Amino acid sequence: MRMVDIIQKKRSGKELTREEIQYFIKGYTGGDIPDYQVSALLMAIYFKGMTSDETAVLTQAMVDSGDTIDLSAIQGHKVDKHSTGGVGDKTTFIVGPLVASVGVPVAKMSGRGLGHTGGTLDKLEAIEGFHIEMTEEQFIENVNTHKLAVAGQTGNLAPADKKLYALRDVTATVDSIPLIAGSIMSKKLASGADSIVLDVKTGSGAFMKTLKDSESLAKEMVSIGNALGRSTIAVISDMNQPLGFEVGNASEVREAVQILQGKKVDDLRELSLVLSAHMTVLAEIFPTFEEAYSELEKNLENGKAFAAFRNFIIAQGGNVEQIDDLSKLPASQYKVEVISKTEGYVAEIDAESIGISAMYLGAGRATKDDEINHAVGITLNKKVGDYVRIGDPLVILHSDTENPENSIRKVQEAYRLSAERVEKPKLIHKIIQ
Amino acid sequence: MRMVDIIQKKRSGKELTREEIQYFIKGYTGGDIPDYQVSALLMAIYFKGMTSDETAVLTQAMVDSGDTIDLSAIQGHKVDKHSTGGVGDKTTFIVGPLVASVGVPVAKMSGRGLGHTGGTLDKLEAIEGFHIEMTEEQFIENVNTHKLAVAGQTGNLAPADKKLYALRDVTATVDSIPLIAGSIMSKKLASGADSIVLDVKTGSGAFMKTLKDSESLAKEMVSIGNALGRSTIAVISDMNQPLGFEVGNASEVREAVQILQGKKVDDLRELSLVLSAHMTVLAEIFPTFEEAYSELEKNLENGKAFAAFRNFIIAQGGNVEQIDDLSKLPASQYKVEVISKTEGYVAEIDAESIGISAMYLGAGRATKDDEINHAVGITLNKKVGDYVRIGDPLVILHSDTENPENSIRKVQEAYRLSAERVEKPKLIHKIIQ
Repeated sequence: MRMVDIIQKKRSGKELTREEIQYFIKGYTGGDIPDYQVSALLMAIYFKGMTSDETAVLTQAMVDSGDTIDLSAIQGHKVDKHSTGGVGDKTTFIVGPLVASVGVPVAKMSGRGLGHTGGTLDKLEAIEGFHIEMTEEQFIENVNTHKLAVAGQTGNLAPADKKLYALRDVTATVDSIPLIAGSIMSKKLASGADSIVLDVKTGSGAFMKTLKDSESLAKEMVSIGNALGRSTIAVISDMNQPLGFEVGNASEVREAVQILQGKKVDDLRELSLVLSAHMTVLAEIFPTFEEAYSELEKNLENGKAFAAFRNFIIAQGGNVEQIDDLSKLPASQYKVEVISKTEGYVAEIDAESIGISAMYLGAGRATKDDEINHAVGITLNKKVGDYVRIGDPLVILHSDTENPENSIRKVQEAYRLSAERVEKPKLIHKIIQ
Repeated sequence: MRMVDIIQKKRSGKELTREEIQYFIKGYTGGDIPDYQVSALLMAIYFKGMTSDETAVLTQAMVDSGDTIDLSAIQGHKVDKHSTGGVGDKTTFIVGPLVASVGVPVAKMSGRGLGHTGGTLDKLEAIEGFHIEMTEEQFIENVNTHKLAVAGQTGNLAPADKKLYALRDVTATVDSIPLIAGSIMSKKLASGADSIVLDVKTGSGAFMKTLKDSESLAKEMVSIGNALGRSTIAVISDMNQPLGFEVGNASEVREAVQILQGKKVDDLRELSLVLSAHMTVLAEIFPTFEEAYSELEKNLENGKAFAAFRNFIIAQGGNVEQIDDLSKLPASQYKVEVISKTEGYVAEIDAESIGISAMYLGAGRATKDDEINHAVGITLNKKVGDYVRIGDPLVILHSDTENPENSIRKVQEAYRLSAERVEKPKLIHKIIQ
């Protein structure tokens, strides 16, 4: 088998065999096939695509390139949730304890974020003493006891994907749906869950800007999951504005906890319930989505979900007083209002600009070595559909500098007002299963 | 400027600027841009093509990446001829002395062949004592005196093209018309001729199998030449069977000399006259193609072209007795007839199979280090359109082994007979200027 023939075959639009895909992934991971042949193949895949069968084989080959996590010691049907990434997305902090509260085990591996705001781990570290250092045995025991634990990622998961992603990044071959789907799913599958619920974001603040692309990606990922023996569902949710009202680290934990305590924040609460309901149906806790939704909603109101969160934080060394009294979470030195200079209905809040604004405040990392400031962040006062008068504060910046000019400018760029009335955007666009 | 942005731009089908193309060629030649980015760009070019402007800029950038040969000390309008390569193509040995005989200077740089038969140099070395070792001054004096000299290629011509070609070869990006055109033209332009006549082969034995592709390639090359200030014409000629009757080294020299001595071998003589006539028109020796053709035909018959060839061979140390008496050229030990097992009209002679058959005899190199056997080769007894009876010899193999089985098998594969009458194929398909 020769790599040049595989490139030529894909270039002419033909379907690669299982053996050809495995040869290429093994050879590339092992260093026998050079970058320059792989980048040519990736560009050919960009233009000619891959069939669902090819994509599933590619994904499995990437999983097989490294370690896989064995969760068999955890009792029950393990369901993982994955989001394609958006600004203000703190659903993990709600979904985790919520599904745990009905007995679905959540064994989460998480990393730090190299995004505009921190990753799951960075955000949780806003709570004093919270840590993820534990043995594998402790991790499994925690999940079995509390149904929820978060550990740092161990093992070398899908190294082929890491190597391919780095190459795609510098060869303009990132935005190919089969390659994106394979990349995401290879990591999820290596992490060992039995079922997967995907939150595929769509809109200006998402990686996929159009509903059509988001739907293609969702379908591809669901097809891979099902082909490789994990029941998978995708929820396509809106990212034409940040999710909820808080963007940051401590502030996102705070907003999530408020929902767990029964507060009703429209979009965030709704999306968390939808994701959780699908997870519990896949875990066969409830027979239908409707029943799951209604039972889970009760657990947000009766304190059971909040209790699950408290137990989880205590088990991982976190200071639970900061959860019980949210004013004890880190707070910034200054609160800076960003004032509207025009009036009208909010038509769009570019989530990426809000994310960058938060990063300028110190809530995220520009480079790997940057330190996260847990206290800073952004509170949105106005969301899409709201009416704004001149002088109304659009957002409050939680800042540790008195005049965070760059952040202010970015917020002003993010808001687009319209003279016409604007409807609140639809939150859940589609369910793919 | 970032290479990844250039790849992305081409990927989305946009035209690259002069600066972008120069940046990429300079960076790649200098080692600052890695192979893996270039191969991704090449694959994007394969799918999205290049405009004539882009291709001309690419070609010039490849010329500028290395040395260029200065032919200004040679008197007259220098016209180069280039063939895209075919089996049995010995037109150079006819065209060179023929245009020299009317005063067009031919300063040919030539290399050895890594093909099924030798290169121009390999074939000329069938003549005892012939050599190309001479100083640049001697080379120029020879051209000025005899209007014809062949030297080995000196200098580092178009190193960017060499590097790119090696990469294309292993990344399935060879067969892109702008890349092929740029590659050929960069070497021609660096060689310093004022005008260029291209012999673009078409058919089963050519790199370009269809007339459409051959025409696209020819148009692209003519457009590059003219854009970069060298008047250029392309002749699209047939390669659905080998050219002439001889394939080999000594035997090809022999067949060419016979034409120079006035022998009429249909296709070979005709193509040589057409190419020569265009060359002399570009050199402004004759006002029209028709006049050029008729004057040149006279020089094949009156011995002037043959005299030019003799002078050239003598000037470069060759034993002219072997030219005056062609039986003194190297001859093989055995002559093996390949007999037809069926009867019918010859419909096709796959030139590539004939070339491989000759290589098996020792006429070409399978690897760079192989030695050429000048004596061996193939004489075609039957060409397309001829009627063949069972037992008729299709070809005579000139072999140094008694039973060259592989060569025999290849010849049998090459011939396809038909019960229906077959017309002789058209030789000159089109002129592109």
